[in-house]
Amino acid sequence: MSPTQGGQSGPSVTERVLGILSAFGPGAESLTLSGIARTAGLPLSTAHRLVGELAAWGALERGEDGRYRIGLRLWEVGALAPRSLGLRERAMPYLEDLYEATRQNVQLAVRDGHEVVYVERLAHPEAVRVFSRVGGRMPLNATGVGQVLLAFAPPAVQEEVLAGPLPALTPRTITDSGDLRRTLAAVRREGVAVCDGMVDLLSLSVAAPVRGEDERVVASLSVVVPSAGAEPRMIVPAVRAAARGISRALGAPSARRRPAGVVTPLPTAPADASP
Amino acid sequence: MSPTQGGQSGPSVTERVLGILSAFGPGAESLTLSGIARTAGLPLSTAHRLVGELAAWGALERGEDGRYRIGLRLWEVGALAPRSLGLRERAMPYLEDLYEATRQNVQLAVRDGHEVVYVERLAHPEAVRVFSRVGGRMPLNATGVGQVLLAFAPPAVQEEVLAGPLPALTPRTITDSGDLRRTLAAVRREGVAVCDGMVDLLSLSVAAPVRGEDERVVASLSVVVPSAGAEPRMIVPAVRAAARGISRALGAPSARRRPAGVVTPLPTAPADASP
Repeated sequence: MSPTQGGQSGPSVTERVLGILSAFGPGAESLTLSGIARTAGLPLSTAHRLVGELAAWGALERGEDGRYRIGLRLWEVGALAPRSLGLRERAMPYLEDLYEATRQNVQLAVRDGHEVVYVERLAHPEAVRVFSRVGGRMPLNATGVGQVLLAFAPPAVQEEVLAGPLPALTPRTITDSGDLRRTLAAVRREGVAVCDGMVDLLSLSVAAPVRGEDERVVASLSVVVPSAGAEPRMIVPAVRAAARGISRALGAPSARRRPAGVVTPLPTAPADASP
Repeated sequence: MSPTQGGQSGPSVTERVLGILSAFGPGAESLTLSGIARTAGLPLSTAHRLVGELAAWGALERGEDGRYRIGLRLWEVGALAPRSLGLRERAMPYLEDLYEATRQNVQLAVRDGHEVVYVERLAHPEAVRVFSRVGGRMPLNATGVGQVLLAFAPPAVQEEVLAGPLPALTPRTITDSGDLRRTLAAVRREGVAVCDGMVDLLSLSVAAPVRGEDERVVASLSVVVPSAGAEPRMIVPAVRAAARGISRALGAPSARRRPAGVVTPLPTAPADASP
């Protein structure tokens, strides 16, 4: 009998260790030992032993204030996730250019289950405030990147999300499944999502799909601008072009450069319409 | 008796779980189950059970090719490390400006033990090639950021590193402890490190210290330029100014803005000379 299953029922040691890591989160970046034990639902002695092992390895770091924080070594291991920094590294030059061209917020996100996870954000100091953060999550129905990622998700995932509930962040968030279904069809048709006032009433996002080498949508890119006076049509070409550039960097066949001399479609054509 | 200690000697379950995570690294971003078992030194059955638990939580992800990769959820937890993305988020506007001003490689790094860990890198497409990567490590003696972080490290850490061995990456890397000691003294005096051809012979880096709210050096910032024809003195003021800006964003008293009307020192004064 393995040591995790011996003698005791309830969560395995692995689950307890992961429960300790889960105790940390946005707003809970530093925790006391007793705080960890309470949040993870562990006896103090068990928490003490496991936290000690995690700290010895570098997954946690103990500050001079006696509180624990996530350690650099766990960040290093996490940085190996292909859907985070690997994607980000290839996308960065295009994000930079879009940031410079728009002087607004530029975001790169992937889908994890029924949520959006932001893997990069460049926020211009004078741009409209955004509520996302790198490593943070948002519902799929409320954000431009979320609508893009949902529109191109496997049909089963779409149906699960459409079956609700669809959380409302503002009175303008799409919460009706019929409305959302029509919006997703439009996103697929246009190759772009425009989300006005759905995360907060003051901002608008324009998002486009990023495709991988098998043509599947692996990420979404967006620019967030102030809602007041925004002209989404002015931003759409830049967002589409950047998304196409990242798709090409990832090896998507539909984003390949056309040979010289071949007539290229007008910039108003969807970036994902392969020839 | 706790389940991790029951019945069996050798590594605890926590150590085995962490050993599985350690099996992944640069060049080993995806592994088969048997590869994980071999690298982590675990019986296949144990690896199978622990990997299953890690995948269920999202610390690992199993691809369609059957290979395992680090999962997005582990990256999310790692992103909470204050010395990685927290630092990076506050530093980003200054890194951006330095990147725009120099059109070269801009790097932000922290010290972990006797090594440099890069937490951010902006690499201009036309800039000289650099060998660092986000989440990657380098020896302290061979890099500009490393020499800065070592120069301002606790004396005990400096002595440990000076006691060697000091790895050589090129014939120009400082590997003599006397030379390194003199270099560190110069770095403390000048508030800047200039490293020419020590990582590879074609590039030169200029690095400056970033201080936290208790005035301790918490990070280092550098610009990497081609070695040929480089005039480090032309870059030093920009690197110092950016490092000072980040220090101020982190709350370092010596980097506070001076009240209007007070005569400020010339820009050639060390950025870390507090009034």
